[in-house]
Amino acid sequence: MFEGPVQRLIDELARLPGIGRRSAQRLAFHLLAVDEADAERLAQSIIDLRRQVGTCRRCFNVTANEECSICRDTRRDTRSLCVLERAQDIVVVERTQEFHGRYHVLGGALSPIQGIGPGQLRFAELKARVVDEEITELIVATNPSVEGDTTALYIARELKPLGVKVTRLAMGLPVGGDLDYADELTLGRALVGRSEM
Amino acid sequence: MFEGPVQRLIDELARLPGIGRRSAQRLAFHLLAVDEADAERLAQSIIDLRRQVGTCRRCFNVTANEECSICRDTRRDTRSLCVLERAQDIVVVERTQEFHGRYHVLGGALSPIQGIGPGQLRFAELKARVVDEEITELIVATNPSVEGDTTALYIARELKPLGVKVTRLAMGLPVGGDLDYADELTLGRALVGRSEM
Repeated sequence: MFEGPVQRLIDELARLPGIGRRSAQRLAFHLLAVDEADAERLAQSIIDLRRQVGTCRRCFNVTANEECSICRDTRRDTRSLCVLERAQDIVVVERTQEFHGRYHVLGGALSPIQGIGPGQLRFAELKARVVDEEITELIVATNPSVEGDTTALYIARELKPLGVKVTRLAMGLPVGGDLDYADELTLGRALVGRSEM
Repeated sequence: MFEGPVQRLIDELARLPGIGRRSAQRLAFHLLAVDEADAERLAQSIIDLRRQVGTCRRCFNVTANEECSICRDTRRDTRSLCVLERAQDIVVVERTQEFHGRYHVLGGALSPIQGIGPGQLRFAELKARVVDEEITELIVATNPSVEGDTTALYIARELKPLGVKVTRLAMGLPVGGDLDYADELTLGRALVGRSEM
């Protein structure tokens, strides 16, 4: 519909998640209208990202160094590990300011349906860390989904024999939520996990 | 929150229209996960866009050539012009397959509030084309807004003395719409513009 370079950018933008044809078109025309320096800085940022960013050799977070800034931070508690599915979940836990240990990114969750077994995730590396780093507590922060539950159970079964305490994030009512809007499963979990006042 | 190159890309993405912090973060992690070739092709498309694309010297559409593909198309009717605010509106009119003439992109609409007067838009170029290209009909397809209305009236007043027919897109009920949902202004226009059956 558009001439070569315009159409090619629209096609590339439309391949991104959450960006449809219309948004891609609006973004392309926006990039035609802004200062050339702004457009080139965006392009350069994408190139830099891929050339400079890799995974932390310890926890598999994203990093521009051998180890990520959290693993290098000497003020962190080195005995407790928070286990996550994806690197982008780290920032969500960090924002709570309630966890002061390190992380371990599995790279996904167990899913027999999608054919993801223990071999495809970073369980061996997790086990090695529990031993080498003398971890005392593993906080499993996988998603509250079937796959996340399966993954948490697998971790508990495999690693508790090593003497490490394995805990899981509480499930229950969201703070500020309304009982009326809670689904049965969540409300059920909130009941099971009730605490004495 | 994230390390240098990751945070820089998130910042650049979040500057784009319609992309918030969360979407920018999701896009950045997506670009980390895809093949490096895919990410670099997106970056290169942005660079190519800015290096190769300019405006058509005749109609001010976007083009990678001196004249856009529509102006170069010898099958188009050269006597009728559709006047638009923005180059991206051309594709919307083209999709209707109802217009076979050429276009003229004004580059905006008259807006005393935003300080946009006739001098900032491509009226002089439009007037020159009406004379040089012996245009017989100008179809004004500015937006159905106060600014679009003002611009259309200005064009009619300035160019009708040259003997060109000036028409405007019909305003009325959207096809497939429901009378219940029509606002009073649109319904008012539909009444004024009613046609005999």
